[in-house]
Amino acid sequence: ETKPVELQESFQSTSTSKYLESRFLLWNNIGAITCYSEQIQISFHDVSYHHSITIDNKTDKYSIGDLSLSAIILASSQTGKCLCILYQSWDSNMREWTINTENNDKIELVSLCEDFIAIGTSQRLIRLMSLSGIQQRIIRLQGPIVSMSSYQNQLWIIHHSTQGLPKEQAMSYVLLNIENDHYQTGSLPLIPKTKLIWMGFSDSGKCFYLEKSGHLSMLRHTKGNELEPLLISNLKQEAEKNNLGSYWLLGINDFNGKFQLRVIELRGQSFPDLVPWPLVSIISLPLALYQIDTEKSQLESDYLKIKLFNNSTDDEEFSNNERQCLIKMFASSCKSNREYRAFEICQLMDSIALQLAVRYATKSGKISLAQKITDELIEQKKDQEQEEKLIQRASSPPPARPPTSIPSSKSSSSSSISIVSSAFEEIKQTRPKVITPTGPFSNPFRKKVITIPENETSTTDELSKWKPSVNKSRLPASNKTTTITTATIQSDINVETITENEDNSLNTKRKIDESENNDEEIGKNKRNKLQQFACNR
Amino acid sequence: ETKPVELQESFQSTSTSKYLESRFLLWNNIGAITCYSEQIQISFHDVSYHHSITIDNKTDKYSIGDLSLSAIILASSQTGKCLCILYQSWDSNMREWTINTENNDKIELVSLCEDFIAIGTSQRLIRLMSLSGIQQRIIRLQGPIVSMSSYQNQLWIIHHSTQGLPKEQAMSYVLLNIENDHYQTGSLPLIPKTKLIWMGFSDSGKCFYLEKSGHLSMLRHTKGNELEPLLISNLKQEAEKNNLGSYWLLGINDFNGKFQLRVIELRGQSFPDLVPWPLVSIISLPLALYQIDTEKSQLESDYLKIKLFNNSTDDEEFSNNERQCLIKMFASSCKSNREYRAFEICQLMDSIALQLAVRYATKSGKISLAQKITDELIEQKKDQEQEEKLIQRASSPPPARPPTSIPSSKSSSSSSISIVSSAFEEIKQTRPKVITPTGPFSNPFRKKVITIPENETSTTDELSKWKPSVNKSRLPASNKTTTITTATIQSDINVETITENEDNSLNTKRKIDESENNDEEIGKNKRNKLQQFACNR
Amino acid sequence: ETKPVELQESFQSTSTSKYLESRFLLWNNIGAITCYSEQIQISFHDVSYHHSITIDNKTDKYSIGDLSLSAIILASSQTGKCLCILYQSWDSNMREWTINTENNDKIELVSLCEDFIAIGTSQRLIRLMSLSGIQQRIIRLQGPIVSMSSYQNQLWIIHHSTQGLPKEQAMSYVLLNIENDHYQTGSLPLIPKTKLIWMGFSDSGKCFYLEKSGHLSMLRHTKGNELEPLLISNLKQEAEKNNLGSYWLLGINDFNGKFQLRVIELRGQSFPDLVPWPLVSIISLPLALYQIDTEKSQLESDYLKIKLFNNSTDDEEFSNNERQCLIKMFASSCKSNREYRAFEICQLMDSIALQLAVRYATKSGKISLAQKITDELIEQKKDQEQEEKLIQRASSPPPARPPTSIPSSKSSSSSSISIVSSAFEEIKQTRPKVITPTGPFSNPFRKKVITIPENETSTTDELSKWKPSVNKSRLPASNKTTTITTATIQSDINVETITENEDNSLNTKRKIDESENNDEEIGKNKRNKLQQFACNR
Repeated sequence: ETKPVELQESFQSTSTSKYLESRFLLWNNIGAITCYSEQIQISFHDVSYHHSITIDNKTDKYSIGDLSLSAIILASSQTGKCLCILYQSWDSNMREWTINTENNDKIELVSLCEDFIAIGTSQRLIRLMSLSGIQQRIIRLQGPIVSMSSYQNQLWIIHHSTQGLPKEQAMSYVLLNIENDHYQTGSLPLIPKTKLIWMGFSDSGKCFYLEKSGHLSMLRHTKGNELEPLLISNLKQEAEKNNLGSYWLLGINDFNGKFQLRVIELRGQSFPDLVPWPLVSIISLPLALYQIDTEKSQLESDYLKIKLFNNSTDDEEFSNNERQCLIKMFASSCKSNREYRAFEICQLMDSIALQLAVRYATKSGKISLAQKITDELIEQKKDQEQEEKLIQRASSPPPARPPTSIPSSKSSSSSSISIVSSAFEEIKQTRPKVITPTGPFSNPFRKKVITIPENETSTTDELSKWKPSVNKSRLPASNKTTTITTATIQSDINVETITENEDNSLNTKRKIDESENNDEEIGKNKRNKLQQFACNR
Repeated sequence: ETKPVELQESFQSTSTSKYLESRFLLWNNIGAITCYSEQIQISFHDVSYHHSITIDNKTDKYSIGDLSLSAIILASSQTGKCLCILYQSWDSNMREWTINTENNDKIELVSLCEDFIAIGTSQRLIRLMSLSGIQQRIIRLQGPIVSMSSYQNQLWIIHHSTQGLPKEQAMSYVLLNIENDHYQTGSLPLIPKTKLIWMGFSDSGKCFYLEKSGHLSMLRHTKGNELEPLLISNLKQEAEKNNLGSYWLLGINDFNGKFQLRVIELRGQSFPDLVPWPLVSIISLPLALYQIDTEKSQLESDYLKIKLFNNSTDDEEFSNNERQCLIKMFASSCKSNREYRAFEICQLMDSIALQLAVRYATKSGKISLAQKITDELIEQKKDQEQEEKLIQRASSPPPARPPTSIPSSKSSSSSSISIVSSAFEEIKQTRPKVITPTGPFSNPFRKKVITIPENETSTTDELSKWKPSVNKSRLPASNKTTTITTATIQSDINVETITENEDNSLNTKRKIDESENNDEEIGKNKRNKLQQFACNR
Repeated sequence: ETKPVELQESFQSTSTSKYLESRFLLWNNIGAITCYSEQIQISFHDVSYHHSITIDNKTDKYSIGDLSLSAIILASSQTGKCLCILYQSWDSNMREWTINTENNDKIELVSLCEDFIAIGTSQRLIRLMSLSGIQQRIIRLQGPIVSMSSYQNQLWIIHHSTQGLPKEQAMSYVLLNIENDHYQTGSLPLIPKTKLIWMGFSDSGKCFYLEKSGHLSMLRHTKGNELEPLLISNLKQEAEKNNLGSYWLLGINDFNGKFQLRVIELRGQSFPDLVPWPLVSIISLPLALYQIDTEKSQLESDYLKIKLFNNSTDDEEFSNNERQCLIKMFASSCKSNREYRAFEICQLMDSIALQLAVRYATKSGKISLAQKITDELIEQKKDQEQEEKLIQRASSPPPARPPTSIPSSKSSSSSSISIVSSAFEEIKQTRPKVITPTGPFSNPFRKKVITIPENETSTTDELSKWKPSVNKSRLPASNKTTTITTATIQSDINVETITENEDNSLNTKRKIDESENNDEEIGKNKRNKLQQFACNR
């Protein structure tokens, strides 16, 4: 009765059960690694980036792997062998190397960062190497590794820590920023008697994890750069609402105040099958707020998404979305005669939204509320914004968005409410690399294109034909198609059958006609049907 | 034999057992929430601030609650209902709102910050809302919540973490600063086989917690803004010295180097009764130092209190207290022929105290000691203080007290001793809001008065009659009555029957004659008897 | 079967079993404390610093102790008595003081910082006092103390935390910087089913710990000032390679990119005996990298040591060592036709090394590699270094070494590899005191000499005869004898029978002829035999 809970084994997120004959080893933004009886196949979502690769697996018994824009890594916990394929390397003579690991320190997991390989071992070690195999550091973990994921040169590791509360596991995490040399740890809050089934970075680089109970959580970077675990949504509950067994999570798009999950819908089965090649759906979930069926909670959910998941550099557009949402909340409060709440909502607004609010309040007969807003908020907010503009011009060359959500603390009569607002501010400062000029989606293929300097032609021949056309046609598009998320106000879960924003369709099946790129503006309006986020073969 | 320890249930500090027919739900600086069979009563210590409120509790079964200067919150873990009363709201139409929580996520605890409501649930979530009910964030805890407390917009949560050492609980805490967006965690050191019985913020905003074993501890903010757990005192030991069963802790006054506990003295019973309404005593405990019965340890205890609990803005007065204490320590060391120790004490002094020390040493025949102090400390200290003054004038407009306790590290021959000195410096920087101009005690009623701007009359009608007279008569008083604590040198525990400092008598029964406020300066000297810190009814 | 693991008892590092009749209580840089049946003996490695001290131990039963340059502390967990001897104090009347601790809070461990005494007790408290016994702070630990060590005014404590994974202990640490008022905590990664047998600071002030399994680990300060636990080496494995039972660790010299352990070689026995007085060996271990027997891994090990353990202020010399090592790695990669790896190695080089690399590549026919290095790295690196020099001249007066290992992130085509490089940068900033001008070894005797100001003669009479001669003769020597470590490239383990660097021979038996100091430059070359790092008597 009092025997300790069994500790779950290590797993690579998106890999399917190792007891299956044919299984996924990995499915990420770039491609998928599949393992058939005696053969490994690496297939790229964008086959124009690289043709698929097949590797014989009779002797090496590779069972774990990872795939990045520059390399493939495969490893076997059975044979101890680790293979690295630098499939984009300029050194065409020698694109592969292997390492044989010691017997008493089995490989459990591998992960590919931008410039590093991380190997997690049974001795609770994380061995870091360069892509070419230069050994760099051996980090110790407090307990057995559970899972590991990477983003750029960040590495996030979840491991068992100590004995949990009765019948529970206790896990902790380590978040390494290898480039900036940061090492952060913390305990991972879990629902009782559940287990971890997915962990990884979202497209914008935030840490998310999913439990079997359906609880999807995020580690939010606070202003003090601590990691605050937040409950975001419940996937299982939402799947059941849609009469589905569950969602098999592949990735999270959280740019521009959006919050979209790339999933495979599971009905009967526990894992997605390899045949037929699974279809990827994009779903949008509400946050796990109280009374989410009410209009009030849905608007709150929308507003929170904007605050939690905004990384936009387009201030104007972002502000509009935020303003729209706040005005809707304000109107809803007015209708239900909640003037105190309406006033609190006003404290989150900027001066433009405030004027709209006053107009609305006046029209709907809330004269004293309108007066109170005018007296206590508008003048003050204007002055404040004026000041901020002056300060910005004087000191900081990169024009930062005025933090309208953090009212000045001068007037303590109007209490200030800061709804996870600082997340946005903080991330802008500490992770400048995340905000790429390409707009909403971190298309890994395109990003590489943009950052490569002028002498690229010599080193990245394979990409050169594909890139320029994409580059020119898509970039302007990304600025015009970002009004979708407000639609989620109406529908609780919004399995978006239309993904107007072409930028998100990274994993989409691409008929490899080059003309597609040029006809994109037109084609975008035509493809109004469930896009298949997979590479059918 | 090896079965795990039972985890203690969640509790609201100062609430009495839920198995009692009539019980306290809360007793804080502002008032008390009591629960009689089918009725909840909220009574304010200062009945002129607000008359008491009675709420029927037949159907809603509220069992937890909190009370702030602007709101009351009540919740039921049984019915899942949560009621918020904004009893000071300007929106007179709609001062109440309720929320019905989901069945599978029961409310365990509620807490009121200045601008936020925090709800702790059985799913190990902290749900943050604004006072009007806008949902803001869902924070996950590693384990079941134990207790929660708030101060301004800080929220401190203690929760079970993992399985403790055999027969022990293991707890961790989360300290949220919602306004500044900080999230700090740590493990909570506990005495073996004890349990937590109180936790909360002191009047100056420091985190304290009390175990059943009597150990009272504090989380000290270091210069690096980490939280260092310090053992402060042992309440049970001190109660036994006074032939009492125990002290029922209500609050801690730690302004101006003081360290006073507001307690209810328990003799036979485990909890304070509601009838007769309990009397509040103010006690002053020594720190838990070795050999506390000796003069040496008592002086050390006094000195440490000055260093740990000083938030004064009155530099001159503070320095005098500190100097007095150091000179006493110096004299005591000289008398016992401990010249090395006497010299170490001198290293903690400023130049004024050093000159007194030299004079004392010379008079008592310690010529070589006097010479050593003059040679090695006085000149150096003078130069240093001169420098600091110059730097202050040049750079920092708010004149900070020279950190006399942190001698310059230039001369490594005179080793520097820093006795928890930095706590003071740090707090000044990171928590500027704490230092209110009202002086030693954070009278919540008055504080609000001062910060309300000129157009207050329209919004806070109820207070307007009461405030002005209090405001004027009390403020000067607070600067004249702060020499008490040095008296604790003589008596080990000092159950202060006289509370000369009117500012502390917040909870005192107030005969509601308006003249009291004007006659305060005189009345203060008359009321030399045990003041009843309660509202008899 | 499910019974919890037994928690190991507290121990002082380098002390031998308390069940031995005669045992070591301590062996550190300054001397050793030995306990014979009814007598304690404190012997100094440098008998000219202080003659040995004998203390009767019939009644006091001292069983733990520590020794610093200014004080000796002894304590008994049995009698609760604690004795402090300020053997270098100017207050010649009163060099000893004792304290009797409470019965219910037994002393477990004691430690001497530069200006503080730390007492760890059975109630999980750390009581801090000044050297003269002024009580200062009582820090609480989450669990029973395991061990404690100090360096300057830093105190590092390891304690049991909660229940570990099945059959494992779970430990955490607290790292206090008393002077700067920092308090850092973290969990201590341990190998399953092992126990801690040594912990302490290296000569340069880094935290190391050793498990019975042989795993030696280090807590590395990252740039963010977090503590990252790294696996360094495996002592047991290395001992077995040398047909030894094990190494009894005494201390770690990690200056100037070196990594040398001072050990006693154990063959049959579990602990070093007191008679004959044990010989100290200096060994140099490779890091615990994969395939350490290959040239590639050995060079990587050497390079990592340079990056991990460099505290040198002598930029030129350090750069030469680093360059040499990188060039060797480059050559090795070229020979094995690993051009991609060779190029990655180049990314770690400065412009001087790069030019050597190009020359090497050209000579060995790797024309395209040479061209690629020239095109993509050399020009860029030159510009970068130029810029850095300009910035340095303009802003920072202390000329810092250009961080060649962290290439500018401008050109993302040449991915940057930072091999624990930042450790060096960070330590320079946060621990300025560590870098003493005395060069490679922190000879505690000499250090004190240098930092004592001009009026020293009055206060430190005992040292005055000894110091000046040492001071002059040794200082220049330290700059000439630091080319040893590169020799370890050839031999896997290098039990250095020759310690050319006189500065390391602190613990050496010293025939107390004063002439030794003057003949040192000559004598250094003669003593080419295993030096006995002990004080034979």
